[in-house]
Amino acid sequence: MTTASLSNTESLTLLSLTIASGAIIANTFHGDGEPLVASVALSGIAFSASYAMIRWLGPTFMKAGLKGLDMSKVHKKEIPETMGAVTAVVYLLLIIVFIPFPFYKDIVAATSGGGNRDVVFEVEHVQHGRLLHRFPHSKLASYLSAILSLQSICILGIGDDLFDIRWRHKFFIPAFASIPILIVYFVDFGVTQIVIPIPLQPYLGELFDLGILYYAYMAAIAIFCPNSINILAGINGIEVSQSLVIALLLVMNDSLYLLSPYPHPATDSHLFSLYLLLPFIGVSLALCCHNWYPARVFVGDTYCYFAGMVFAVVGILGHFSKTLLLLFVPQIFNFLYSAPQLFHIVRCPRHRLPRFNARSGLLEPSVTEWQNPPKPIISAGLRALHQLHLLRITVDTRGVITESTNFTLLNLWLVWFGPKREDRLAKEILLMQFFCGLTGLFVRHRLALWIFKEDNL
Amino acid sequence: MTTASLSNTESLTLLSLTIASGAIIANTFHGDGEPLVASVALSGIAFSASYAMIRWLGPTFMKAGLKGLDMSKVHKKEIPETMGAVTAVVYLLLIIVFIPFPFYKDIVAATSGGGNRDVVFEVEHVQHGRLLHRFPHSKLASYLSAILSLQSICILGIGDDLFDIRWRHKFFIPAFASIPILIVYFVDFGVTQIVIPIPLQPYLGELFDLGILYYAYMAAIAIFCPNSINILAGINGIEVSQSLVIALLLVMNDSLYLLSPYPHPATDSHLFSLYLLLPFIGVSLALCCHNWYPARVFVGDTYCYFAGMVFAVVGILGHFSKTLLLLFVPQIFNFLYSAPQLFHIVRCPRHRLPRFNARSGLLEPSVTEWQNPPKPIISAGLRALHQLHLLRITVDTRGVITESTNFTLLNLWLVWFGPKREDRLAKEILLMQFFCGLTGLFVRHRLALWIFKEDNL
Repeated sequence: MTTASLSNTESLTLLSLTIASGAIIANTFHGDGEPLVASVALSGIAFSASYAMIRWLGPTFMKAGLKGLDMSKVHKKEIPETMGAVTAVVYLLLIIVFIPFPFYKDIVAATSGGGNRDVVFEVEHVQHGRLLHRFPHSKLASYLSAILSLQSICILGIGDDLFDIRWRHKFFIPAFASIPILIVYFVDFGVTQIVIPIPLQPYLGELFDLGILYYAYMAAIAIFCPNSINILAGINGIEVSQSLVIALLLVMNDSLYLLSPYPHPATDSHLFSLYLLLPFIGVSLALCCHNWYPARVFVGDTYCYFAGMVFAVVGILGHFSKTLLLLFVPQIFNFLYSAPQLFHIVRCPRHRLPRFNARSGLLEPSVTEWQNPPKPIISAGLRALHQLHLLRITVDTRGVITESTNFTLLNLWLVWFGPKREDRLAKEILLMQFFCGLTGLFVRHRLALWIFKEDNL
Repeated sequence: MTTASLSNTESLTLLSLTIASGAIIANTFHGDGEPLVASVALSGIAFSASYAMIRWLGPTFMKAGLKGLDMSKVHKKEIPETMGAVTAVVYLLLIIVFIPFPFYKDIVAATSGGGNRDVVFEVEHVQHGRLLHRFPHSKLASYLSAILSLQSICILGIGDDLFDIRWRHKFFIPAFASIPILIVYFVDFGVTQIVIPIPLQPYLGELFDLGILYYAYMAAIAIFCPNSINILAGINGIEVSQSLVIALLLVMNDSLYLLSPYPHPATDSHLFSLYLLLPFIGVSLALCCHNWYPARVFVGDTYCYFAGMVFAVVGILGHFSKTLLLLFVPQIFNFLYSAPQLFHIVRCPRHRLPRFNARSGLLEPSVTEWQNPPKPIISAGLRALHQLHLLRITVDTRGVITESTNFTLLNLWLVWFGPKREDRLAKEILLMQFFCGLTGLFVRHRLALWIFKEDNL
C-alpha cells in the first residue's frame, strides 16, 4: 500500500526536524542542560516520530482489525482506528527519556544560589559520576506517578478500543488510571487543604481541610477530563484539535508564570506542566495532520482518554485544577447538555454524531425519532428547550413530537448556524473553544483577586 | 457460553479467599501495618481477581480475535489467547494500590529506633494527617520505576500479540521497557561499581567502575529474562509454571535474608523483591490453573515478557542479578542451544514446538527437514551434536542428513527420554528447573565465599 510510506517532502521535513531537535538536545549537555529547551526539542522529535509511525503502522493496524468506517463521506472507506495508541506510546517513551533533564537543572539550582558551582563538581568527583545526588526526589515521584497514570490510561484505553466496553463501564476507566497519582499524592504530599474564598472565610476559616473529599475531587477531575473529550467527538479531527487548543491555552497559562518578573512559588509546578504538555502538543499535532478532514486515520478512545488524562495530571500535580476547568467550559457544557441522553432520561441512539447529507455534502443535526410520543413531562421539557433554542423538535399535524435533535454541542451548533461542511464545523467549534478559554484565563488572572486574597501572579 | 462463568465451588472458594485477604489487610491498619502481611493478603486477592477475570473475559477476547489453536490435541479447538494481559493488568493495579503499605512501615522503622513512636504521632498531629512525611523517597522512585517498566512491557507485549511483530524486532521490546528503570537508576542511584572476585583483585582492585557498561549489563539482563522465557514455550502451562518456579526460588532466596539472625544490609532490597514477587505468584497461579494441560486459555507473549521483566526488575533493583541468572540456567541453556536456529545458522521453521502424535497421544521431538543436504561444515556440526546426544539426526541410505530435531530444550528432553504426554513433559522440565535453581542457590550461598570476600549471609 502506497499510503504506508512517506513522500519525499515529508521524509525530508521530518528528518530535518529530527536532526535539528537532536542537535539542540546534544547542545544542552554542554551548557546547564536547560530542560525547557530540551523539552521543546524533544517535542520536535515527538512530532516527527509520531507522524512517521502513524503512516507506517496504518496497514498493520488495519490487518489486526483495528479499522473503522468514516460515516460522513460520500465514498465511505475503512481507515485505521486507535491510532492514538501510537502517539501515546511515542509520548510515553519520550517523557521517560526526558527524566534526566529537569533533574540536572534542579541540582544546579539547588547549589548555585551563591554562584558556587564548584561545590557541585567537587562532590561529583568524589562520588564517581553521581552528578544528581541532591535530586529533589519528591518531584521525581510525582513525575513518575504522572507517567504511571498515563500508561495506565493507555493500557485501559487500548482495552476499550479492542473490546468495545459498555458505556457505563468505560466511564470509570479513568478512575482506575488515576489511582497512581492519587496514591503517590497520598504517600508523598498529602496536603488536602483548600483556600477558602474571602466571602466564605468568616464561616470556614482561611484554609479548610477536605481530607478524603480532596481525593474524591481529584478523582472526579481525572474521570471528567478524559470522558468529556471522549463525548465531544464524532467529526474528523475534533478530538485531537480540541485537545490541542486546551494544551495551547495551558501552555499560555504556564508561560505567564515563567515570564513573571519575580520568581514565583508556583514556577516549578508550571515548569512541570510544560514538560508534560510540550511533547503532548508534538504528538497531537502529528496525529491531527492525519486525522484532520478528510481523515486518513481515526484516533480511537485511547487518544481521548489519554489526552484528558494528560490535562488531569498536570492540573492535579500542578495544583491548578480550577484553572483547568475554566478551559473545559465547552466540554462541561457538552457534558451537562448530553446528560439527559447519557443517563437515559431521553432515548439515546448508538451514535449521536451529526448526520451526513450525501446530496449537499454538508452535516446536519442528527435526530432521535420518537416512535411513541414522549411522556408528558419529557415532552414539556423538549418543548421548553426548543423555545430556548437549545434543541430542535419536529411535531406532526396533531402536535405530537416525532423527532428531536440529539443532545450534543455539535448538533446544537448545527441547529444554531445551519448545515455546514465537516471541517468548517470543526474549525468553528475550535475557535469557540479558544475564545472561551481565553476569557477563562482572563477571569482567572484579573478577577480572581475579588474572591481570593492573593493571586498567583 | 457456559465456560465464561465460575462454578459454585469456584465462586465460593474465591470469595472466601478474597474476604479473608481483605480482613487481613484491614487488620494491618490497626497494627504497625506490617507490609509483608499485607503483601501476602494482596496476593490472595490477586489470585482470586485474576482467576475470575480470566474466566469471565475469555469470550470477550475470542470475539476481539485474540484466539489461538491448540496444536497438540486430538480435537483441536480455538481458545482465548493473550490472557497474560489480564493477569498483568490485575498485577499492576494491585502493586500500585500496595504503595502506601511499605511506606508506613518505613516511617515507623525510621523513628522507633529508641522505641519513641510518640514523636511520629506528634508530627502527625502538627502536619494534619501527613503521616508519611519522612518517607524514603529514593525507594519510592525505584518502586515506581519498576512499575513503569512493567507497564511498558505490558503495552509493548500487547502490541506484539496484536500485530505479530517480527522476531528480530520483538527481541528488543524488553530493551524499550527497561528504559524507565535504567533512567531512574541513573538519576536516583547511579552506582556503577562492581565488586571484583578475590583472585582478580590484585589486577583490578577491590571495586571496579563499569560506568556506562553497567547500564549495558542491566539492559542485557532486561532483554534476556523476558526473551528467554518467551522461547522456552510451546506446550501447555510451561511459560507460567517455569515463571512460578523461578519466582518461588527467588522468594526462598529473599526469605534467607529476612530470616537471618542479625539485620542484614540487603534486607530492604529483598523485602522490595518480595513485595513484587508475591502478587506475581498470585496472578501466575491463577493463570496456571487455566493454562495447565489441557489448556483452556493461552498466555500470549505478553505474559512471557511480563514475567521475565518482573524478574529482571527485582534482580536489577535488588542488586542480585548474578543470583537471578543462577536460577535461569535452563533458560540460558535453551537460549544458547537455540542460537544456531535463532541466528539462522541452521534453518528455522516458523514453529519449533514438539510434534503431537495423534495416534499415541504423545509429544515427539519436532524436526527440520533438509530438502537440500546441509553444507559440509553444518553437516559435520550436526553429526558431532548427534554423537554428543545433543541432537537427533536422520540420514538416508547415502548417509546424507535428511532431518534434524529442532534446537529447543523441550525437543532435546524428548530425544533423551522418549515421547511423553504434554503435561508429563512440562512436569519433568519444571522439576529439572527447580533442582537446577536449588543447586544454584546452594552454590551462591555456600561456595561464593571462595571467590568473594564477604557473602550476603
